[in-house]
Amino acid sequence: MAYDSSIVSIDAARLLTRIEQLGQIGRDKEDRLVRLAASDADKRGRDALVSWMKEANLEVVVDKVGNIFGIWRAPSEDDQAPIMVGSHIDTVINAGVYDGCYGVLSGIEVIQTLQKAGFVPSRPIVVAAFTNEEGVRYTPDMMGSLVYAGGLSVEDALASVGTDGSLLGEELERIGYAGSVEPGFLKPHAYVELHIEQGPVLEREGIQIGAVKNLQGISWQRITIEGVANHAGTTPISMRSDAGYAASRVISFLRDRATSSPTPTVATVGCISFEPNAINVIPSRAIFTVDLRDPNEHSLQAEEAALGAFLTDLAAAEGVKITTERMARFEPVTFDATIVEIVEAAAERHGLSYRRMTSGAGHDAQMIAHICPAAMIFVPSIGGISHNPREFTSEPDLVAGANVLLDVIGKLASEREK
Amino acid sequence: MAYDSSIVSIDAARLLTRIEQLGQIGRDKEDRLVRLAASDADKRGRDALVSWMKEANLEVVVDKVGNIFGIWRAPSEDDQAPIMVGSHIDTVINAGVYDGCYGVLSGIEVIQTLQKAGFVPSRPIVVAAFTNEEGVRYTPDMMGSLVYAGGLSVEDALASVGTDGSLLGEELERIGYAGSVEPGFLKPHAYVELHIEQGPVLEREGIQIGAVKNLQGISWQRITIEGVANHAGTTPISMRSDAGYAASRVISFLRDRATSSPTPTVATVGCISFEPNAINVIPSRAIFTVDLRDPNEHSLQAEEAALGAFLTDLAAAEGVKITTERMARFEPVTFDATIVEIVEAAAERHGLSYRRMTSGAGHDAQMIAHICPAAMIFVPSIGGISHNPREFTSEPDLVAGANVLLDVIGKLASEREK
Repeated sequence: MAYDSSIVSIDAARLLTRIEQLGQIGRDKEDRLVRLAASDADKRGRDALVSWMKEANLEVVVDKVGNIFGIWRAPSEDDQAPIMVGSHIDTVINAGVYDGCYGVLSGIEVIQTLQKAGFVPSRPIVVAAFTNEEGVRYTPDMMGSLVYAGGLSVEDALASVGTDGSLLGEELERIGYAGSVEPGFLKPHAYVELHIEQGPVLEREGIQIGAVKNLQGISWQRITIEGVANHAGTTPISMRSDAGYAASRVISFLRDRATSSPTPTVATVGCISFEPNAINVIPSRAIFTVDLRDPNEHSLQAEEAALGAFLTDLAAAEGVKITTERMARFEPVTFDATIVEIVEAAAERHGLSYRRMTSGAGHDAQMIAHICPAAMIFVPSIGGISHNPREFTSEPDLVAGANVLLDVIGKLASEREK
Repeated sequence: MAYDSSIVSIDAARLLTRIEQLGQIGRDKEDRLVRLAASDADKRGRDALVSWMKEANLEVVVDKVGNIFGIWRAPSEDDQAPIMVGSHIDTVINAGVYDGCYGVLSGIEVIQTLQKAGFVPSRPIVVAAFTNEEGVRYTPDMMGSLVYAGGLSVEDALASVGTDGSLLGEELERIGYAGSVEPGFLKPHAYVELHIEQGPVLEREGIQIGAVKNLQGISWQRITIEGVANHAGTTPISMRSDAGYAASRVISFLRDRATSSPTPTVATVGCISFEPNAINVIPSRAIFTVDLRDPNEHSLQAEEAALGAFLTDLAAAEGVKITTERMARFEPVTFDATIVEIVEAAAERHGLSYRRMTSGAGHDAQMIAHICPAAMIFVPSIGGISHNPREFTSEPDLVAGANVLLDVIGKLASEREK
């Protein structure tokens, strides 16, 4: 049966209730939402997710890194590659309730809606919840999707040591989510991830749907500047090697360059410390982080190179020693243009405002994009706030996003290989 | 008897040995020198000091805030105001051995040398060791001399609560150094403080003696900048209120202004912290300290005003809220020109290179300067390093400084009121 988006829409109450229910699982004594990967709280969240998958008559499969898949088999099971929709349900410490969970629960909601409408998919539809997307307890983040896409071995992932000294492999065994299936066992025909924007663009522009065409490359560095600690009162300016001042020059340089850049480069210094950190002592050491992002790999490399050149000049000019350490590096990801068009067409059909945009944050979609055509759908985040209990997306926006996902999945699951 | 500097000089071995011995008192388990005011270690240091004062036949008097005075009464005791020489023997945590102690021990050395030379002073000579100059355990610093000069009441000083929750008054009682004499009981005819420079100027210029003509005013502020925490990847530069970037602008502003200032203004940002201090979150808050110093009160006020105006503009430009909190403020002190000339003449007589200079650090002399003519003598600090075990002044420089002090005290103690 062909899918007609004009006559069906998702069950808003059911979706919103599940988001609310999942958001109550993993509250700590201070009522903070803390559902770190493979923790007891994560187990309870996973159990709830599995129960909802079963309610939707999905076949539940867990792979070796704990990724959970809810599979709606197509009636004509003839090896058609599935449509995968997914995200993650692990959270940061003191999280909001939407990040990740919204995408996973919307996937189940879409399937249940299609089932009720009597839709007959031409290929399986799979809802995925990837392990340890946040990377708070285990490194790296986006681990489950990275392993699924073949970017990290199962062994290395399971040997990951948590901030609490635990081993991911042992923790997955302990909570009952160490599956036996190899990650990558289903190679999707397409992957679509619905997510809150976690940025301010859609809200500021009054737009309801983001058709995410690409995802920024990320360059994380830790920079250490070493100067000389001297007395703040007795050391003339001309005799100083002030690591703190040198750090301030880097922060200003990064900002000024990003502001004047013709590309959508962003640069952020989020962490800093001075040593000895005394009011009357010139800092002997400044340690800070640099987060550089650009959707174009060439531009991102140019930003890294410009920073490197600036640091070289600065070290000479200020008499300081500067060392940099790479903490993370992801190349930009370009999503599938066809799926992005399908997202735009779906928003159009629903009478929703939309725009193409870049994801500034990392998502499981960037990993899965390595093994199949992929794209993302964003809904507005009020104030751009995320990773915080004040993370908020209005109910109409949540419902609109899920209906766009419904439309997109319905369309993709109607296609068959030639 | 008139004093002839050409025939006497201090006993270098005795002075250096005492500096060494006092520097061994108060070593912690890691061999760090930690002799915080009114601690057990301070008691042991005080006991050693008193024993050396008694060796020099000085009358030892302790006042109500624990200041220790070793008095060499003039034979013709007729109410002539004394010459006071002094400094402090309390230390910071992990201190060097010269800061303060050098001045106090040189005072005793000068008296013993004068005694041995048969010098008959026309007025008493007093060596003072002031309580809690460093201000590490109790606030404010330079407390003993401040009380002595009438700038703080005895009651308020003794009620000072230490970083360890202790009361200074109780601690002085406990270690046996709560005296009964009112601070200020001796009003000096003149005060001279010999001290290591704690800055790099004398060493860099190859000069042996600093004749300290004035002492910088100090302005300490804590600045808090409040922006908005947002995702480092998803928030376009134009939509940011980045407290960390704003802080970097302040640090650069202060430095650029000090560099281009025609006055010897120095500005230092020694402490900083960002919140939430996460690599991928734009700082919502930056808290940092500003240490501004200038030997001219008018200039110091101008620097404070310029900073204030910059902050106002910055807050508007960056969409951040900026609050400032005054932590400390001392006006500059001008020392007595006549004593400064006597110091220069003494250096000249000893064939030592010398220069007039400004003290960038605070010293007990700035307090005592409120009640009598005062000045200071500096000797070189290698690398300008102080408050650190690497604090170092060569033995010849230490001896030269003490001999200049000997000359100055001999001269001043030969004067009688008209």
